[in-house]
Parts: sequence; C-alpha cells; structure tokens
Amino acid sequence: MKIQDPYEIEKRSMEIITKEIGDLNCRPEEGAVIKRIIHTTADFDFAQLVVISPDVVESAVSSLKRGVGVVTDVSMVKAGINKRVLTQLGGKVRTYIGDKDVALKAKKEGVTRSVLAMRKAVQDKKNRIFLIGNAPTALFELIRLVRDGLAEPDLIIGTPVGFVGAAEAKEELMKTEIPYITVRGRKGGSPVAAAAFNAILYQIRELIL
Amino acid sequence: MKIQDPYEIEKRSMEIITKEIGDLNCRPEEGAVIKRIIHTTADFDFAQLVVISPDVVESAVSSLKRGVGVVTDVSMVKAGINKRVLTQLGGKVRTYIGDKDVALKAKKEGVTRSVLAMRKAVQDKKNRIFLIGNAPTALFELIRLVRDGLAEPDLIIGTPVGFVGAAEAKEELMKTEIPYITVRGRKGGSPVAAAAFNAILYQIRELIL
Repeated sequence: MKIQDPYEIEKRSMEIITKEIGDLNCRPEEGAVIKRIIHTTADFDFAQLVVISPDVVESAVSSLKRGVGVVTDVSMVKAGINKRVLTQLGGKVRTYIGDKDVALKAKKEGVTRSVLAMRKAVQDKKNRIFLIGNAPTALFELIRLVRDGLAEPDLIIGTPVGFVGAAEAKEELMKTEIPYITVRGRKGGSPVAAAAFNAILYQIRELIL
Repeated sequence: MKIQDPYEIEKRSMEIITKEIGDLNCRPEEGAVIKRIIHTTADFDFAQLVVISPDVVESAVSSLKRGVGVVTDVSMVKAGINKRVLTQLGGKVRTYIGDKDVALKAKKEGVTRSVLAMRKAVQDKKNRIFLIGNAPTALFELIRLVRDGLAEPDLIIGTPVGFVGAAEAKEELMKTEIPYITVRGRKGGSPVAAAAFNAILYQIRELIL
C-alpha cells in the first residue's frame, strides 16, 4: 500500500531519518535544522556539516515579532520557504535579484546582480533576516555591509553551494557575531537554505502560536 | 584575488568538477547532465546515480521545435530553470500545483494537489516535457497517466528526493519507454531536476542556435 498523504509521508520520512541518524548530541533546534535539511537532500553528510550559532531561534523570534522582512538571494530559495507559516508569524519575503534597477546598475557598473541585490536589500531597514543559498558573492557582500555598519541582520542563513568561493564565504560568516546557520565546505544550496529556515519557522510556531 | 564574475566562477567550477570526477566513460550528453548536477549540489555521488535513456536530447530537440509546454511539479523546479534559454528555444514553463481549482478539488476529493496538478497538466496536449523534482506521488501519477494512454511525454526528468516512495517512483520511471533522466535511490530534488534540464537546454542551444 503506497503512502499518499503528504503529512503521512513527511512523518514517516522524519521517523526514518531519526532512526538512521542516531544520536546527534546537539541542541534541539540544531537537530531540527539538520533533520529538515536531510529530509530535503537525502544526504546524511549534513549531520556533520551544519553549524548553528547558539542564539538563532531567540533572535529569529524577536525579529519576527517586529514584522521582519526576509531577503533571499535567488527566487529558488524564496520558492522553498513555507510562506503560509512565515505569513502567520508576521514575516514577508522578498528577492531583489530580478529587479530591473539591479540589472541596469549591474550592466552599468560591472558589478554582479547578486552583489547589487544585497546592497539594495539592506537599504530597507525592515530586512533583517537573510537567506543566501546560491551566490557566494552575495554572502561576501552581505558580510562586508555588516562590517561597514550598513546592515544589522538578526539572522543569516548562508549556505551557498559550489566549488569557487562557497566554502570561503561560509567560513567568513562563522567569524561574524551575527546569529547564523551555515554548512561547512562545498555542499549547501537553495533548498538547504529554505529547509533550515523552515525548521526555524516550525519551531517558532510551536513556541508562540 | 576573489573571482567575482559569475561566468568565470562557473567556468572554473566546471574545470574543478571535470578534474575531480575523472573518467566518466559515458555519452557526452550524460556527462554534461552529471556535471551540471554536481555543480548544483557539490555531491559527487550523482556521478554513479544519474541514469539517462539514450534518446533524451533528440526527443527534447523535436519537442522544443514544436513549441512545447514544460511542466514542473513545484515552483522551486520552475525557479531553477534557465528561462531565458528555454524561451530562446521556444519552450514555456508552467506549474499547476498552486492553481485554485487544483486546491479546491484536492480538498473535495481527498486526493493530493501533486496528483491533481499532473492530471490537469496532461489535459493540455502541448505539455510534453515534465520535470518532477519533489513529489514521488506526482511521478507515480504521471506514469499511470502514460500507461492509461492519457499522456504522451517527449521527456520526463523525474528526480524526487526522499525516504518514502521516491526511489520506487524513479524505478517505475526507468521501466517506461519514455525518454527520461533520473537518479537511483533516495537522492535528487528540485535543483537536480532543474540542473538536468538546463544541461539539456544548453546542449540543444549549441546544436540549433
């Protein structure tokens, strides 16, 4: 008999992951993030690669209470967020990379759209949660904006994937004082960023709704 | 000196992948799909897991020449497709899972939105390329529709990820006569489906533009 109900599939999947992953020996919010990333990728390597700073849930809760803007580097991350739950919790999500003025400026100034999208995003001071799943250059730029005092995020989920710059950008993120979730090394990606954020949203929903 | 230019990053990434992957011993279109999936996931396991039927590129070319409709199971797959190139080649992409009538019918009939979205998609006979990156139930349903003579796809990229039904749905796909790209086992996902399709699009662009 095939399981058809998506909630049943998710429940059964999480049971399988919990059984196969064994003892994670970490904080509950870390475990929830790791399991949701494995649910999205079927890649148990993430159990060893995910790094979460201790203040993530607390910071995200207070951020959402103020009606925060959530910024993603690419539309694929936005597509992966559970927007129903985000809306329930008072958050809004936006991606700037497709904006016409960003594209025009990129051409004119010879700077990438990823970088310019971050510069535009931080101008709206409501934007305090950033999810970067694709572009290392976006993560590097966001960290620079923080260091230059031009951005003050409550949470950065930085999981760009790839072979050039991704691991380095994520190492830089781990050196900051900002609450963060990241993945060591080359692995990561848009669904990983979205899954990590969804895991945080689901925990906050349990806490405050 | 950090590499900033996205084209330069992609070129350098592909060089690293080509070097590390070694001899793939496969057809060129297979190699291109495998490398682009690894580029998207940084997961070299895919070199052993990707399966491509021999007629994929040929079938996709003739399909695109007829101005094909491309259907994705979820918006995340749609977000990952290079729509600029798809449009150049004459294709259009659509996702049905968010349609209001699909949601209403799902509630009324107690069938999942994924399944109903496939049933709706095949009613438009222009829809002949299907990318399923998320829902095993969507892939099972599409295969059933094919077997019942209600759909005749030119290409199915079926790479649902997960622990319940994903591997089984992909095994079913490999038993059909339809040109397909898939991934053995649990791994896969929306970016994998999009990356595989982009790899095919880029090859077709080389061939016909």
